[in-house]
Amino acid sequence: MSTKVFLNENEIPRQWYNLAADLPTPMQPPLGPDGNPVRPEMLAPVFPMNIIEQEVTTQRWVDIPEEVLDLLYRWRPTPLYRARGLEKALGTPARIYYKNEGVSPAGSHKPNTAVAQAWYNKQFGIKRITTETGAGQWGSALSFACALLGLECKVYMVRISFDQKPFRRLMMETWGGKCVASPSRETHAGREILAKHPESPGSLGIAISEAIEEAVSDKTGQTRYSLGSVLNHVLLHQTIIGLEAKKQLEKFGEKKVDVVIGCAGGGSNFAGLAFPFVADKIAGAKMDVIACEPASCPKMSRGQFAYDFGDVAGTTPLLPMHTLGHTFVPPPIHAGGLRYHGMAPLVSQAIVEGLIQPRAIHQIECYKSALLFAKTEGFISAPETSHAIAATIQEANKAREEGKEKVIIFNWSGHGLMDLLGYDKFFRGELEDYELPEHLMQESLAAIRDLPKPKVCRTGKW
Amino acid sequence: MSTKVFLNENEIPRQWYNLAADLPTPMQPPLGPDGNPVRPEMLAPVFPMNIIEQEVTTQRWVDIPEEVLDLLYRWRPTPLYRARGLEKALGTPARIYYKNEGVSPAGSHKPNTAVAQAWYNKQFGIKRITTETGAGQWGSALSFACALLGLECKVYMVRISFDQKPFRRLMMETWGGKCVASPSRETHAGREILAKHPESPGSLGIAISEAIEEAVSDKTGQTRYSLGSVLNHVLLHQTIIGLEAKKQLEKFGEKKVDVVIGCAGGGSNFAGLAFPFVADKIAGAKMDVIACEPASCPKMSRGQFAYDFGDVAGTTPLLPMHTLGHTFVPPPIHAGGLRYHGMAPLVSQAIVEGLIQPRAIHQIECYKSALLFAKTEGFISAPETSHAIAATIQEANKAREEGKEKVIIFNWSGHGLMDLLGYDKFFRGELEDYELPEHLMQESLAAIRDLPKPKVCRTGKW
Repeated sequence: MSTKVFLNENEIPRQWYNLAADLPTPMQPPLGPDGNPVRPEMLAPVFPMNIIEQEVTTQRWVDIPEEVLDLLYRWRPTPLYRARGLEKALGTPARIYYKNEGVSPAGSHKPNTAVAQAWYNKQFGIKRITTETGAGQWGSALSFACALLGLECKVYMVRISFDQKPFRRLMMETWGGKCVASPSRETHAGREILAKHPESPGSLGIAISEAIEEAVSDKTGQTRYSLGSVLNHVLLHQTIIGLEAKKQLEKFGEKKVDVVIGCAGGGSNFAGLAFPFVADKIAGAKMDVIACEPASCPKMSRGQFAYDFGDVAGTTPLLPMHTLGHTFVPPPIHAGGLRYHGMAPLVSQAIVEGLIQPRAIHQIECYKSALLFAKTEGFISAPETSHAIAATIQEANKAREEGKEKVIIFNWSGHGLMDLLGYDKFFRGELEDYELPEHLMQESLAAIRDLPKPKVCRTGKW
Repeated sequence: MSTKVFLNENEIPRQWYNLAADLPTPMQPPLGPDGNPVRPEMLAPVFPMNIIEQEVTTQRWVDIPEEVLDLLYRWRPTPLYRARGLEKALGTPARIYYKNEGVSPAGSHKPNTAVAQAWYNKQFGIKRITTETGAGQWGSALSFACALLGLECKVYMVRISFDQKPFRRLMMETWGGKCVASPSRETHAGREILAKHPESPGSLGIAISEAIEEAVSDKTGQTRYSLGSVLNHVLLHQTIIGLEAKKQLEKFGEKKVDVVIGCAGGGSNFAGLAFPFVADKIAGAKMDVIACEPASCPKMSRGQFAYDFGDVAGTTPLLPMHTLGHTFVPPPIHAGGLRYHGMAPLVSQAIVEGLIQPRAIHQIECYKSALLFAKTEGFISAPETSHAIAATIQEANKAREEGKEKVIIFNWSGHGLMDLLGYDKFFRGELEDYELPEHLMQESLAAIRDLPKPKVCRTGKW
């Protein structure tokens, strides 16, 4: 009885899929501080030009370089599982599948783009990559990728996580990455904050500022910055997940998919699985595509589609996205990767088009779902991933109530072995659910009131 | 360029391999306290009879039950990797392969026997399994297996690890296992020790006594005890590793193997990879089979082949094995799984026969090797596994010096994501190498001086 399908090496996808080519409405450009579109060359101090070209391309298929494939082969293709244990426990007629991205050396989907970005940087002559990390998943994935390619990696890690979660830092150091607590004394931005707030716990926004500052101020031009989600090229690199999954579903004998599910923080693991299916939906296939987020950080289900900054300090270009406002401070839920204020522009536009439905879920339901999954499927899930499991269980229960043999697939984006303190709090009954109060959301949305507005266009009509 | 090979589902091994059938000399029996051989039925209060039968069988091939295969399929076949990155870094003409057992949900090879043992217990009508665990790898693997099969699992965890390493305990709890610190108030043995030493840090010996006591004192007869290494049936269940690896090497185009390497604590992951190759060696193939151990706990390279107890308290049957004496207290090295005083009887007998060569390695060399492996192959290794990597690097360097195109395979028995504090100490320069002083070894060996002696027979001649 088959529970798991791989692909042969000759079946592995050799191109990434770019949803921008198929969206009914063209993507709106990022804007500079003057409100005018950002031209690619303006980003050149931050990213290498080959990545910038990928960021703006509208080509449907982008070749994966042979050497990037060699690196991806180290853990790809990842297995697609039939969740027979979970199905049985739920008594559902649905057939549930999940893509196991936890088998990568860093334990999540993040290395899919990390190795690609590191490779493009190296091709462009870059010797050193800077980035920021919150809980540490992205910083460790980039350190891993840089180790394989012989690049230096410098990670600014939000101080409170740096102090509380030494294990992710140790992963980075094992791969040779340099990890410093942010705010640090190594940048102007960091020193300025420390002068005012010596005890600052840091934030992702500060860490981004530090990482970008270090990249752009390297006079030799050999340093660039890297981002682990949100941007078009990052989502592009992740589509190998969904492209593999489609071939694997065929091997399971499935001819159609009814529901596609992923959790979405910046949007990259969700897009990675979902976009190749969204392409089918655009072409006429009927399916529900569900992007899950915490009820405490409901940017897709309750936020605005607006132009907003990517960082708290407001130094990045303005991106058209679902946002709670760049000054939004999320409550301390355990899914650190889902606490970002904004959503990837490609995912946001697909929501506007009606191709993707957001769904907000409370964290206690997520932990309960992850526990059922651990006991029936055997894998311990990251708190972010537990949101996708919770939505899958909701859909499987619905299929039972409707008596329908639905096919559900979700992205098991990473394991939770570095996140067991959240489980501990759950066992002790110390976790709480937070519904974001309307007035708090309106307060942080007020910060973007005077920014330029994107056109809101649905299914190709402006 | 292929770096990784799986197997198709129809190629997965469907039988385990039993080295006992092929050893030139028959295995010597376990002995009871009276010095007479232990009869199978004497073990019935501890293990279910179907497992006892497997423990004593001399059948060469043992069928893997279909339902056990279904469980193993959840993560098997595990990939066999060609270590191209490591080879390049070493500039060796050797071709290095490793079997990645870290992809299992518990992160090591342990679930291979855990699911089999849980299944046989369930078949026999057992509802509840007790066991002990040191650092927690075995306890978490058995909790995982019991969750999948709907059995209760009770783990006695050495108190010092219970207090210092909460993450393994949290894995057990996530899978529904009950984990208590040992010595506990739940058994006579535990209460007796706590009465004398209320602050006892515990030991594996005490934990074994507690787990066995709980199993044999359940009046309903529905509880049994389970061991994660050392015994014949445990090693048998692990041979799926080597059987898969042989098929995978063929897919890589390899016709012969020159060196087979594994780390050995109780012996199960080593035997799992090595025994199917040892069968070829018995049949005439030339190869080196190397069992690696810490220089601080050198039972194979410096200990005696003798009858000894499996536990510190001396309550188990006497087993013929390489030992440092059951009262041996190993120094606090970081490879917790390699700190056991004895070696599996099957591995020990194969050493006596000259089929396997032990090799002792210091921990700092192991950490250096693991670091090189992380930077070139991308995977972070368990401290136990790092011993196999160190020996592999030694052999690859030797091949370079000799200018020989050797084929080397080792068992990458588990990932080190739960063991990063050891890496931290290594980075800080806080680790030390311990060479076991001769007088300490002689002291603990004195404890077995008056026990019965095994016959020392080589290559079939007594």
